[in-house]
Amino acid sequence: MHKKVNTEDFFREIRKGNISFLSRAITLIESTKKSDQLQALQLIQYCLPFAGNSIRIGITGPPGVGKSTFIEAFGNYLISLGKKVAVLAIDPSSSVNKGSILGDKTRMEKLATNTNAFIRPSPAGNTLGGVAQMTKESITLCEAAGFDVILVETVGVGQSETLVYSLTDFFLLLHLAGSGDELQGIKRGIVEMADGIVINKAEDNNIQAARFAKKELENALHFYPPKENQWKPEVHLCSAILNQGIREIWEMISEFLTLTRKNGYFEAKRAEQNKEWLKKSITNLLLQDFFASIKVKSSIKKMEQSIAHQQISPLDAAIQLIELYRNKKEE
Amino acid sequence: MHKKVNTEDFFREIRKGNISFLSRAITLIESTKKSDQLQALQLIQYCLPFAGNSIRIGITGPPGVGKSTFIEAFGNYLISLGKKVAVLAIDPSSSVNKGSILGDKTRMEKLATNTNAFIRPSPAGNTLGGVAQMTKESITLCEAAGFDVILVETVGVGQSETLVYSLTDFFLLLHLAGSGDELQGIKRGIVEMADGIVINKAEDNNIQAARFAKKELENALHFYPPKENQWKPEVHLCSAILNQGIREIWEMISEFLTLTRKNGYFEAKRAEQNKEWLKKSITNLLLQDFFASIKVKSSIKKMEQSIAHQQISPLDAAIQLIELYRNKKEE
Repeated sequence: MHKKVNTEDFFREIRKGNISFLSRAITLIESTKKSDQLQALQLIQYCLPFAGNSIRIGITGPPGVGKSTFIEAFGNYLISLGKKVAVLAIDPSSSVNKGSILGDKTRMEKLATNTNAFIRPSPAGNTLGGVAQMTKESITLCEAAGFDVILVETVGVGQSETLVYSLTDFFLLLHLAGSGDELQGIKRGIVEMADGIVINKAEDNNIQAARFAKKELENALHFYPPKENQWKPEVHLCSAILNQGIREIWEMISEFLTLTRKNGYFEAKRAEQNKEWLKKSITNLLLQDFFASIKVKSSIKKMEQSIAHQQISPLDAAIQLIELYRNKKEE
Repeated sequence: MHKKVNTEDFFREIRKGNISFLSRAITLIESTKKSDQLQALQLIQYCLPFAGNSIRIGITGPPGVGKSTFIEAFGNYLISLGKKVAVLAIDPSSSVNKGSILGDKTRMEKLATNTNAFIRPSPAGNTLGGVAQMTKESITLCEAAGFDVILVETVGVGQSETLVYSLTDFFLLLHLAGSGDELQGIKRGIVEMADGIVINKAEDNNIQAARFAKKELENALHFYPPKENQWKPEVHLCSAILNQGIREIWEMISEFLTLTRKNGYFEAKRAEQNKEWLKKSITNLLLQDFFASIKVKSSIKKMEQSIAHQQISPLDAAIQLIELYRNKKEE
């Protein structure tokens, strides 16, 4: 184990772009220890004035679409343009099996060893403000460390896309060419969120199908209501493994940035996201506080039993427990 | 508008199976008026001892899979067995466009006019305890009104499946035969939740593809970890429009019930669900209380501005607001 680093040292090293300290600082954010959490808050406070200058790109897609290979190709391309790239992966556990899905750094071999890259999976767990909160704060630290592009990756299961959407400026959906109705395979909500769709593995004898899928998706997008930010989502072909079509994706994102910075939507979206995050943080911390309350702790078991015996509804029980929580004296 | 009904009358009529009063009682639950909410709580309390005796079946599937047609066929079949069937539809709005997706009662023509059926969509909205909470309480009322089978329907977008899963005993996934990799089109998390998968529209020149899809899904399910309840999810073919394969689905559910009632999992799952619902109710009500607090109201705008100017992180702001909320005197 490392010995304890004080907040000023953390801050100074992060500002220098020291990846080892950045990594340890994120561990601090993710810690469940009270003293670590207090230090993390202070460190975030220090970093905040130096944050906000990156482009945050959300990347999602179903398992098997080649996310890691894409990020390897895309990340290395960005670095070749002189950028520093951080990859944060959100790993929500599915609601039945709580298995970890990520950890495939091996597929990002070149990127993982590049000094201008930083790759970090977010573990699931019950930390200060919840799993996702950490990612928000991790972005702040990465930005203070000088990273220009933050890729926030998620596997396409459940609510994680909405979460990544609320963390990023541009939302990229990776897709594989299927056959027949392209939109059937994609959840409608996700298509609505996407600023760009990339059909990966457009290579070898898959090219025909990929081109067809592109047409079909473009037709479908045509019928979607126009976005508030006036951006028209684009569909692109790409072969991450052959390093083809990568430049065009970055060009699309650059055009998006030019447009939304000009029409003010870029800043407006970030402001909106900050409000959302405030609410998320409140929810998480309020529940932590509630369930830690001694009065609640001493009554909740009895309430659960009454519910089990159909003597009280969960809603009614909740109302009574909150009454207890609200009226508590200093404990 | 109807004139006000007192709680005792509501209760008596619901117990008689009066669908008109049942419907108005659910409207009461969904009301945002404080006095309605208090009455709703009391009514739920009355009904609670008479609830719990139905089979709750969750039905989900992507748009176009034929959910309404299936429910029409399945519901009428159950009624032919002498059962009373309630259909509750959860309609979450997607995160970008808040459009209502349901309201297709017209596709359930026969069922909608049957005196042994009750069909009710849950509107989105900000009511006591949140959208989903109402569905939980609506189930209680339907059960007290003597409905034997409650079908809880949702469109397969976003988090609604998890929600329906936490409301029901048996989770049925409707699917259309695709071509190629059947599982690509279905979110992994949903397959894990499913107790049964029904491939609908197995008719005409689609039968071959449907049979193939069935085989492939069965093979795939084979590799899933066994369920705690020892139930092995089954895949069935069905043509809702031709009324074929409906009986087999009910037989599957009956076998599921026999097994899980015998091994205790049926009751265990309901107990677990009640705990979950308690937590959901607490979350919703706690947030309502928090944001209604005068101290919070008077500070939150300033906090939002500080966040916008990067003077404070959302997490830190949340901590300070909760501090204010906790230390408030009686307002």
